[in-house]
Amino acid sequence: MIVHLHTAVSEAQASQIAAQIQALYFHDGQRYVLVTGAKDNSLEGVDSRLLEGHWIMDSDIQLASRKYMPQKRTVRIGDGITIGGDTDHTMMITGPCSVESLEQIEVCAQLCVEQGVKMLRAGAYKPRTSPYSFQGMGLEGLRLLDRMREKYQLKVITEVRDATHVEDVIAFADVIQIGAKAMYDQGILRRCASAGKPVLLKRGFGATLQEFVQAAEFMLSGGNSDIVLCERGIRTFETKTRFTLDLCGVAYLKEFTNLPVILDPSHAMGYAYGVADLARACTAMGVDGLLIESHPNPKVAKSDASQQLDHAEFRALMQSLHPIAAAVGRKMI
Amino acid sequence: MIVHLHTAVSEAQASQIAAQIQALYFHDGQRYVLVTGAKDNSLEGVDSRLLEGHWIMDSDIQLASRKYMPQKRTVRIGDGITIGGDTDHTMMITGPCSVESLEQIEVCAQLCVEQGVKMLRAGAYKPRTSPYSFQGMGLEGLRLLDRMREKYQLKVITEVRDATHVEDVIAFADVIQIGAKAMYDQGILRRCASAGKPVLLKRGFGATLQEFVQAAEFMLSGGNSDIVLCERGIRTFETKTRFTLDLCGVAYLKEFTNLPVILDPSHAMGYAYGVADLARACTAMGVDGLLIESHPNPKVAKSDASQQLDHAEFRALMQSLHPIAAAVGRKMI
Amino acid sequence: MIVHLHTAVSEAQASQIAAQIQALYFHDGQRYVLVTGAKDNSLEGVDSRLLEGHWIMDSDIQLASRKYMPQKRTVRIGDGITIGGDTDHTMMITGPCSVESLEQIEVCAQLCVEQGVKMLRAGAYKPRTSPYSFQGMGLEGLRLLDRMREKYQLKVITEVRDATHVEDVIAFADVIQIGAKAMYDQGILRRCASAGKPVLLKRGFGATLQEFVQAAEFMLSGGNSDIVLCERGIRTFETKTRFTLDLCGVAYLKEFTNLPVILDPSHAMGYAYGVADLARACTAMGVDGLLIESHPNPKVAKSDASQQLDHAEFRALMQSLHPIAAAVGRKMI
Amino acid sequence: MIVHLHTAVSEAQASQIAAQIQALYFHDGQRYVLVTGAKDNSLEGVDSRLLEGHWIMDSDIQLASRKYMPQKRTVRIGDGITIGGDTDHTMMITGPCSVESLEQIEVCAQLCVEQGVKMLRAGAYKPRTSPYSFQGMGLEGLRLLDRMREKYQLKVITEVRDATHVEDVIAFADVIQIGAKAMYDQGILRRCASAGKPVLLKRGFGATLQEFVQAAEFMLSGGNSDIVLCERGIRTFETKTRFTLDLCGVAYLKEFTNLPVILDPSHAMGYAYGVADLARACTAMGVDGLLIESHPNPKVAKSDASQQLDHAEFRALMQSLHPIAAAVGRKMI
Repeated sequence: MIVHLHTAVSEAQASQIAAQIQALYFHDGQRYVLVTGAKDNSLEGVDSRLLEGHWIMDSDIQLASRKYMPQKRTVRIGDGITIGGDTDHTMMITGPCSVESLEQIEVCAQLCVEQGVKMLRAGAYKPRTSPYSFQGMGLEGLRLLDRMREKYQLKVITEVRDATHVEDVIAFADVIQIGAKAMYDQGILRRCASAGKPVLLKRGFGATLQEFVQAAEFMLSGGNSDIVLCERGIRTFETKTRFTLDLCGVAYLKEFTNLPVILDPSHAMGYAYGVADLARACTAMGVDGLLIESHPNPKVAKSDASQQLDHAEFRALMQSLHPIAAAVGRKMI
Repeated sequence: MIVHLHTAVSEAQASQIAAQIQALYFHDGQRYVLVTGAKDNSLEGVDSRLLEGHWIMDSDIQLASRKYMPQKRTVRIGDGITIGGDTDHTMMITGPCSVESLEQIEVCAQLCVEQGVKMLRAGAYKPRTSPYSFQGMGLEGLRLLDRMREKYQLKVITEVRDATHVEDVIAFADVIQIGAKAMYDQGILRRCASAGKPVLLKRGFGATLQEFVQAAEFMLSGGNSDIVLCERGIRTFETKTRFTLDLCGVAYLKEFTNLPVILDPSHAMGYAYGVADLARACTAMGVDGLLIESHPNPKVAKSDASQQLDHAEFRALMQSLHPIAAAVGRKMI
Repeated sequence: MIVHLHTAVSEAQASQIAAQIQALYFHDGQRYVLVTGAKDNSLEGVDSRLLEGHWIMDSDIQLASRKYMPQKRTVRIGDGITIGGDTDHTMMITGPCSVESLEQIEVCAQLCVEQGVKMLRAGAYKPRTSPYSFQGMGLEGLRLLDRMREKYQLKVITEVRDATHVEDVIAFADVIQIGAKAMYDQGILRRCASAGKPVLLKRGFGATLQEFVQAAEFMLSGGNSDIVLCERGIRTFETKTRFTLDLCGVAYLKEFTNLPVILDPSHAMGYAYGVADLARACTAMGVDGLLIESHPNPKVAKSDASQQLDHAEFRALMQSLHPIAAAVGRKMI
Repeated sequence: MIVHLHTAVSEAQASQIAAQIQALYFHDGQRYVLVTGAKDNSLEGVDSRLLEGHWIMDSDIQLASRKYMPQKRTVRIGDGITIGGDTDHTMMITGPCSVESLEQIEVCAQLCVEQGVKMLRAGAYKPRTSPYSFQGMGLEGLRLLDRMREKYQLKVITEVRDATHVEDVIAFADVIQIGAKAMYDQGILRRCASAGKPVLLKRGFGATLQEFVQAAEFMLSGGNSDIVLCERGIRTFETKTRFTLDLCGVAYLKEFTNLPVILDPSHAMGYAYGVADLARACTAMGVDGLLIESHPNPKVAKSDASQQLDHAEFRALMQSLHPIAAAVGRKMI
């Protein structure tokens, strides 16, 4: 159940009521909001004069549900850039899998500028499954991204792999990316809830849609309303492709949740040859953004070599996306 | 290995060579073609003067492989209607899940005519999982479809559920649909190989892409080259949607096989609310066709009530697909 | 809903009532039994004097449910051999993947005799995924199995791959095996319902437990009560093993259905090294039987070479199973 | 590649060689061991007099592979208690899902003492998917477990959910459990590598066997050789049970890795009715231990109420396991 308290209710009062009904609470900019796990009305004993309204929800998808907030949330990145809401924008985000060097990331940043892309992606901490392969440049990678932001006025999105560097990522990123393997990490989710920055939450490849949105609830109920969902492929029995991009799931998320949705066809496919086709499919679904891995020279990439587009391929892709976005009443930015 | 014999080689000779190298064989319109399971050259002892060429293939995807035939196959339905090849057409196929009555199927046929759709789909034999639910109208259903063909000059596609009625479906259909649950059925595959009619082969929802294309090989190697693949969703751990439409798999099929690909987002999604979005995504991928379930009144449908579009929804969908098809250089017919 | 009519009710009357309430019906040896898809009482208008009792069921698992028949069914093979019921027997069934020759199958039959195994398994029609590999000996294979039955007094179980040979398998087998890929085939299920012989129904590797038991319902509601379920592994994301043996599912089947359950660890594992360990696990679960592939010389087997035990391995396995069966109060036969 | 340096080689030298060949290194009690991601010999330039031996491995399963260390590792818990190795023990570990109160955990500890169980399990930090449900008692829970250890001389195993409390769990646990949702967390894996305590690593329910063992490699290559693998069910399309216990995977782990394997049928099944049957199956596979959730009164449990055995059920289970363990040449402790 979600409860809106009157705007005049103080934090002390909110805190007391929250304790009374075993609720989490946060201030949404206008009033204190309480959320409990109760599936029926549990407001007995609460002074009704303090209450503005309440929603009895039928699942633990609460703040993210369109039954609570029917319109899609607008996530503000800064400098007038937004994702979702009623912008009718599909935001392109591109860059390499990993920051590898100043030269490499600078070429990537220049591609963004050339193509009108506003947000640069690259990993500094890589969630590799083997301890014996490249693990990312770490803090040095974050600093290189920072230089790109300054020099080219790009927004930077980069991934939290685990809690050891969550503070560094929060400090350096414009949008914090919580990687698929960290999606269930309550420590990271709770920390990002109070980070004061937008978060792009990737779906765990073994996570149900229910669990995915519930992970977002950890942050929404901690007071961070700037959450973007990112579908990046789920693990199925099919092995010819790396993962299976779940566009049926995206249709579900668009229908039932109020969170913007961004798609990552690069990780889903795992092979560059299919990425452009999938990106076109995603664009035609009218999603709020795309995350496309591109690299000046994928063959020598230190991670995910097989799935990154080279820059010529990326330019061709961008050109093909504009008319599709237009065909569904959107604008590719 | 695929072997082309010289055009002058007789069936008797072809048959003899086939026996010698343990091959299947058929005539492809120009010459006899032999196919064996051998992954290396096994032509020792065969008179080389009878041979025109051969391809050593690295998997049991042979005749369907672009390594054998690089260009996409053209499937001829009749009356100048084709699927695939270099038509740059995306063919819409629509109609109800089941034929339920003359009145119902006639309204559906009229929708096709109105919207310029050339092919009507509907099931007469329904592969239900429960013996206690509606199993289809059977032969009477086929006869109603036949009347629609005559009256409205529509092509008819309908499903073989099992072998008990395969002859009836072959007799009545313009395109024989082999349903997902029959995809592995060698009896049906072999019968359809010699049916003299095009076949739309649906992917089993538990079948790998490898197995899916191998099922097509049963028909290609039996001499039927008019095979269309249909992805209709695979079974995964996600249960909020009925199946998961595998567009990564479609990218694979487009890249590595020479067979036209049609998509069925209705069965994948299982809910009408997501079908239009998915159909738009499929169209932007540049596939060869779409199979969309529509019904004059889905609420009273005897099967798949939740996923069928009503006719107003279908009209709106069609309108939205034309500009997307145009944006990817295709035409929706 | 299941309805028992009074024992005196004639077939003509049963048929009429069935038509009235849209039910399937059969005679269970004592009375006519009607089954409908209705989830509530739909007997209005039926003369209550003709009714003996009824069960309102909450799913389409009806005749197979313990809510209808609480005790486990006894399946009679003939000559006093039974599976399930209260026998507390775990029946071993073994033999090669495919009948390959008289010599091969005879050595297998002799192994059965030596080890006290009463039932010989071997396929004559192989459901291969590639048209270019060995497809089985067909009718000749059935005849070889027939000779083994005669010569060694063994019961024979062999697989229906598709409808083209269902009559032959029915004629030659003591137990008809419906293979995993044919599990959804209503034509085969309905034919086997009236075959007058026991059926071992394998779970499709992409089939839910619900669908698996519903496939059994097709036969139970057609009057064949001698149905044994066989779990043989489901397809998951894991590829180090061929399939994943679903023992959680077996626990479900034992708890909620009244059908005997046999396990096939050979196909699940796909590699001989794990079969013995899994067979021991299955035995400790107290199941009604095991299906183990064994071959005199697996290295030269024409199908499933990697997963068949050689005869020395099979003997060692049998020896290890007896004490485990005893430890759970059963007897391995 | 794994490299053993001579026992006389100092850390300074080991560190230098590791840098030279881009290796991780640790001391295994006898000598420094280096591990690199190289799949071929990359020792060029290394003084061969410093080398004792090396193993060129074909995958990133290296230290855990039987190709490196053929015998199963012995994990020492303290006080003479060991898991794995050649003990032929199957170690029972039981207790409630969550510590809920002193009274509750004390009854559980007493059950352990009564049944000869040496290790008590219970969670203090619960990895719930919803922020609105019970999240565990936290540090207070750890303190209650500590009291049980002191009072009843039990070993305690409890779970790290995320990095915020990893130090507390390391301080209080005898065996650190890394939960399924944290399996990919490199921060936690690396911290536990140097924790000086044994670790039970649960398989992520969406993780392949390859990734599972690679997660263990993070700890082995960090110098912690006391790693136990725990299979607890994977996520598949089947929803009648909570997860699917992957015993085929266990057969793989036993064959190819040198790590002890413990099974958790409680989480796999998700329902108490199937746990005893599955525990018997696991025992017959000859695994190194079992993790069984039991609770004095499951109906009122604050988490996982449906799957915990009550104490009477647990006693009956233990009694049934002893003869099965004996039948496979092991002893249940």
